[in-house]
Amino acid sequence: MNAPTLLLVQLTTILIAARLCGFVLRRIGQPAVIGEMAAGLLLGPIVFGAWLPDLHALVFATSSLPALSGLGTVGVALFMFLVGLELRAPDGTRAQVRSAVLVGGLGIAVPLLFGLAVSPYLHPRYAPDGVPFWPFALFVAAAMSVTAFPVLARILRDRGLTRSVPGRLALSAAVIDDGCVWILLAFVLALSRGGSADGVLVTVLGAAALVAVVFVLLKPLYARLLRPRIGHGELPAAAFAWILIGCVACAAFAEWIGLHAVFGAFLFGIAQPRDDRLLDALTTRIEPVAVLFLMPVVFALAGQHTTLGAFVGAGLGAAALVLAVAIVGKIAGCATGARLSGHGWRDSLAVGSLMNARGLMELIVIKIGYEAGLIGPELFTMLFVMTLLTTFMASPLVSVFHRRGAALPDGRETHS
Amino acid sequence: MNAPTLLLVQLTTILIAARLCGFVLRRIGQPAVIGEMAAGLLLGPIVFGAWLPDLHALVFATSSLPALSGLGTVGVALFMFLVGLELRAPDGTRAQVRSAVLVGGLGIAVPLLFGLAVSPYLHPRYAPDGVPFWPFALFVAAAMSVTAFPVLARILRDRGLTRSVPGRLALSAAVIDDGCVWILLAFVLALSRGGSADGVLVTVLGAAALVAVVFVLLKPLYARLLRPRIGHGELPAAAFAWILIGCVACAAFAEWIGLHAVFGAFLFGIAQPRDDRLLDALTTRIEPVAVLFLMPVVFALAGQHTTLGAFVGAGLGAAALVLAVAIVGKIAGCATGARLSGHGWRDSLAVGSLMNARGLMELIVIKIGYEAGLIGPELFTMLFVMTLLTTFMASPLVSVFHRRGAALPDGRETHS
Repeated sequence: MNAPTLLLVQLTTILIAARLCGFVLRRIGQPAVIGEMAAGLLLGPIVFGAWLPDLHALVFATSSLPALSGLGTVGVALFMFLVGLELRAPDGTRAQVRSAVLVGGLGIAVPLLFGLAVSPYLHPRYAPDGVPFWPFALFVAAAMSVTAFPVLARILRDRGLTRSVPGRLALSAAVIDDGCVWILLAFVLALSRGGSADGVLVTVLGAAALVAVVFVLLKPLYARLLRPRIGHGELPAAAFAWILIGCVACAAFAEWIGLHAVFGAFLFGIAQPRDDRLLDALTTRIEPVAVLFLMPVVFALAGQHTTLGAFVGAGLGAAALVLAVAIVGKIAGCATGARLSGHGWRDSLAVGSLMNARGLMELIVIKIGYEAGLIGPELFTMLFVMTLLTTFMASPLVSVFHRRGAALPDGRETHS
Repeated sequence: MNAPTLLLVQLTTILIAARLCGFVLRRIGQPAVIGEMAAGLLLGPIVFGAWLPDLHALVFATSSLPALSGLGTVGVALFMFLVGLELRAPDGTRAQVRSAVLVGGLGIAVPLLFGLAVSPYLHPRYAPDGVPFWPFALFVAAAMSVTAFPVLARILRDRGLTRSVPGRLALSAAVIDDGCVWILLAFVLALSRGGSADGVLVTVLGAAALVAVVFVLLKPLYARLLRPRIGHGELPAAAFAWILIGCVACAAFAEWIGLHAVFGAFLFGIAQPRDDRLLDALTTRIEPVAVLFLMPVVFALAGQHTTLGAFVGAGLGAAALVLAVAIVGKIAGCATGARLSGHGWRDSLAVGSLMNARGLMELIVIKIGYEAGLIGPELFTMLFVMTLLTTFMASPLVSVFHRRGAALPDGRETHS
C-alpha cells in the first residue's frame, strides 16, 4: 500500500471504530466521546495488536504514523482553540463564585498532593531513564488534577442538569481547574526541558512572550478584525482564514519554545472577543471536522502508545493505586470544597463525581507528558485507563447522589 | 525543530501566503482562489527556493513532507466529495440541454485532439523515462480538457452572471466536461498501471466494483440513513460521521486499486441524495476547514514539484505551446459548440472564455498525473502556469465579450 492508501485505510478504521464504540456508549446513556476514547485504546497493541498482530503491524506501521500524527497535531490545536474560545470566567453571585473557587481550588490541591504522595513509589518503577524526580512527580500530580470541562458540559447537557446547583458549580469550578492545570503543566514542561538551565529559560521567557503577544498584540488586533464582521451569524472567509492562521501560528510558537502546541492554540482562543455570535460561527465551522474527524485520530494515536506491560505483575497494583488516588483525591477534594461553601453532602458529592470525569482533556495532558518523555508507556497506559474509568463513572455516580438529593431540601433547586 | 513545530510552521507559512495572495487577487477583482494557487507556486523552488534557499530547505524539508501530504490527501478528498455532492445534471429546456451537450462535447473534443496533436513533440522531451506514448499523450490531452466548475461558479457569482445565458450554458457544459475528463483520467490511470496487463485489469475491475458498491449499495443505504435526519437544517453528529467514513473509505478503495483517492470521494459525493438541505448542512460543516485550511496545503505541495528548468532554453517554447494549445483549443471548441447551437458570437466567446478557466480542478488533475509518474517536473510546471493564466484570464475575457454582447439583441437576456 502506498502512503495515501495507508493513511485513508487508517482513517477509515479509526472513524468506524470510534463511531461503533460511540454508538454502544450512547446506547447505555453515556456520552459518545467515552466510546471514541475507548476505541483509541482498542486500536492499540493491547486489543487490536494482540488479536491480529499482522494486520495491526500493517495498518499502524510505525513508518506510516507521521501523516496520521500531522492530522492529530492539527486536530488537537483546533480543539484546544475551541476550548479556549468557550472559556468564560465563572459568573454568578459572590457566594457562587466563592463556592467555585473553593471547589476548584481543593479539587486541584487534594489530587495534586495525593499525586505527589504516590510519586516516590511510582518514580523508581515507571519514570523513563534519566527523568529526575520533581518533573515526574509534578507531572503525575498535574495529571491527577485534570477535570474535563467539555465532557462535563456534555454530561450535564445530556441529563438536563446544566442549570442545576451541582451542575453550575461543577462547570465554574472546572474552568478554574482547567486554567490551573494548564499553568502547572506549562511549568512542568519548562522544568523538564532536557534538564538544562538554558532550556528552562527559553521556555519561560518564550511563554511570557507568547502571553504578551497574544493578549497585548493579537487580542486587540483580532477584536478590530472581527467585531465589525460578525453580526448576521456570518463570518467572511478571509476573517475565518485569519483566525486559523492565528491559531496555527500561536501553536507553532508554543511548540517551538518547548511548551506544547495546545498552549498556543488555547491562549489564542481565550484572547478572542467574548461574543456568542463569534463563538457560534467558529464552532459551526471548526467543530464538525475537528471533533468528529480529527479527535478520534488523536485517541487512536494515543492508543498506539499503550502497552499490556502496564498490567503485568506489580503493574496491576500500581494501576489500582493510580486509579484510587485519582478518584478519591478528586471526589474528596471537590466535595470538601462544596461542603465548606455551604452545600449539602449529596450536592457536594455530586459535584465531586462530575469533576472526577477526566475526559479527553486528560488524554491530551498525558499525551503531552508522554511525548515530552516524562512518563513511559506503562504509566501512560494506566493513566489512559484511569481516564476512561473516571469519565465513565461520572454519569452513574451523579445519578446516585443527585436522584437522592433531589428529594431532600438541599436538592430542591436542582431541577430546572 | 521537531516534527509538530515544523508542520505548524509550514501551515502558518502556507496559510499566510495564500491569504495575502488571495487578498491581492480580490483587490483586482479576481477570485481569491487564483491567489491561493499562485501562493503554492511562489512557495516552491522557483521563487521561495531561489530567493531564500536555506530557509526553503528548512521549512519544506523533504523528510517533513509526509505529514503535510497527509493533510493534503484529506483536503483533496473532502473537496472532491463536495464537488460530487454539488454536481447536478444539466437542467432546463431541451434546447438548453442540447446546447450544453454541444458546448461540453466540443469543449472536450477539441482540446483533447489538440493535446494529442502536440504530444509527439512533448513526449520525447518531457515524458519521464519509461512512460509509453499513449498514456502520456492521453494524460496531456485530458489535462488540456479540464474545466474548473467550482472556480467558474465563483466567477459567475462574483459578477452576478450566474443566471445569464452564457453563465447558465457554461455551468451546464462544465458539468459534462468534468464528468468526461474524470472518466478519461480514470482510463489513463488504469492504462498506465506499471504497464502490466494484470495492473490494468485490477484497476478496471476495481473501478467497476467501486461504481457498483457506491451506487447499488451505498447510495440507498445513505439515502435511508440521511433522509429522515435532514429537515430543520440540522444533521446529527453520528450521521455526519458516517458521511466522513463513507468518503474516506471510498477514497481509500479508489487509491488502493490504482485510481486516485479523489475518484472514490467524488463518486461517493455524487451518490448522496440530491437534497439542498443536505448539501447545505454538509457544505457548512466541511467547506470552511477543507477549502480554507486544507486546499492551500494542496497548492503548496503542488508548488514544491515545480522547477525553473521548465522555462530554460527550449522549455520556454514548449511552455508557450502548451499555453496556446490549451487556450485556443478550449475557447475554439466551446465557442463553436455554442455558435452551432444558435448563440451569437459574443455569447459563444464568453462561454469559451469561462470554460477556459482550469482552476484548482486542473491542479488536482496534474498532481495526480505527476504522482502517477506520467509527467515530470518540467511539464508539471508548465501545466501549473497554464492553470494560473487560463483561470486568471477568464474574468477579463468575459468582461470584453459580455459587455459588448449585452448591448446587442442576443445579449438582451444576459442580465438578471
